[in-house]
Amino acid sequence: MYLKKPMEIEYKSMDIIEAELGEHDFSPMELKVVERTIHTTGDFDYKNIVSIKSGAIEEGIKAIKGGCRIVTDTTMAFSGINKRALEKLNCTVECFIGHEEIFKNAKLKGITRSMASMDYAARSQVDIFVIGNAPTALYRIGELINENKVAPKLIIGVPVGFVGAAESKEYIRGFDVPSITTIGTKGGSNVAASIVNALIYMASDGNRDE
Amino acid sequence: MYLKKPMEIEYKSMDIIEAELGEHDFSPMELKVVERTIHTTGDFDYKNIVSIKSGAIEEGIKAIKGGCRIVTDTTMAFSGINKRALEKLNCTVECFIGHEEIFKNAKLKGITRSMASMDYAARSQVDIFVIGNAPTALYRIGELINENKVAPKLIIGVPVGFVGAAESKEYIRGFDVPSITTIGTKGGSNVAASIVNALIYMASDGNRDE
Repeated sequence: MYLKKPMEIEYKSMDIIEAELGEHDFSPMELKVVERTIHTTGDFDYKNIVSIKSGAIEEGIKAIKGGCRIVTDTTMAFSGINKRALEKLNCTVECFIGHEEIFKNAKLKGITRSMASMDYAARSQVDIFVIGNAPTALYRIGELINENKVAPKLIIGVPVGFVGAAESKEYIRGFDVPSITTIGTKGGSNVAASIVNALIYMASDGNRDE
Repeated sequence: MYLKKPMEIEYKSMDIIEAELGEHDFSPMELKVVERTIHTTGDFDYKNIVSIKSGAIEEGIKAIKGGCRIVTDTTMAFSGINKRALEKLNCTVECFIGHEEIFKNAKLKGITRSMASMDYAARSQVDIFVIGNAPTALYRIGELINENKVAPKLIIGVPVGFVGAAESKEYIRGFDVPSITTIGTKGGSNVAASIVNALIYMASDGNRDE
């Protein structure tokens, strides 16, 4: 016998996480974000490494409630975001990494497709950047901010890995922009999506669509 | 300054992982799989928790080289798999979780969509199951094997979480079927995709498409 009802599984999972989490200083909203990263990775270390710059959650929820434009670096992050819930809130989510023009631009400029897709996205206002994989995307967002080409309301930046990931997140935390990042090597597109979903569910005031 | 060439980043990343990994008993092929799970999560714990049942890698590569049918439980796992490389090897990958019929079937039978999508997939032979999220999908695969409804050549089973995930993987390891799983709570759709990609790259004999 095993549980077969998705929401039952999720509630039970969140209860277990909260019980195992032990002492912490998270606000109730911060807890929702941290819990979901643990839920999506099975890794309690996220308790120690999620970094929420003050106001990031509030700004994210406000943007989502207002109907915003979200851009991800990977199709995996795109896939992991609850688009049914997002549509109800009149938000859009886009990922350009697989577009033919991005391949061309990246080759032409000698940059990563992730960078080229950030340039492409920044042709219009991006409210929330969701970066799960590419340190180069995060660096590019910083450059675009410095060049006044984009003014995001929130950056969710959790690239994973050993080459520039930790540094790219440190770099983004240096900006005067609300951000949710991780300290160190851990992260990923699944983590990025889980953070967006945590914000979406809070913005939905419990009227979550399954 | 930061690295902007994808393959350069990846090679450097793998070098760092290999250097940090320390002593191990992995075969060269096992190492490729374990390294890629660490690469995709930033988490060295995968060194200790990846469980490769004997012959699983060889069977996986053989199936992929022969042109096989792969089915995933999530669109995230589907997204993370290198489909360009897969197409060159005449393999297909499918995910049914979002299909209208799956919603209907799940509701009708009172089961998860993940389970319903495994039932649906098993109408034809599935060579490799790739389960990154749903313990219920993994349990269902076991049931379908017991009912002689499916005979996979390899099961990649790395559901994540605190409700049945560890148990579902333990359950699948009990079958006389090649499997690559993780011990405990960790895993995820990104990890599942990374394992498939490791096999694809080995099957491509270094002729990897970027």
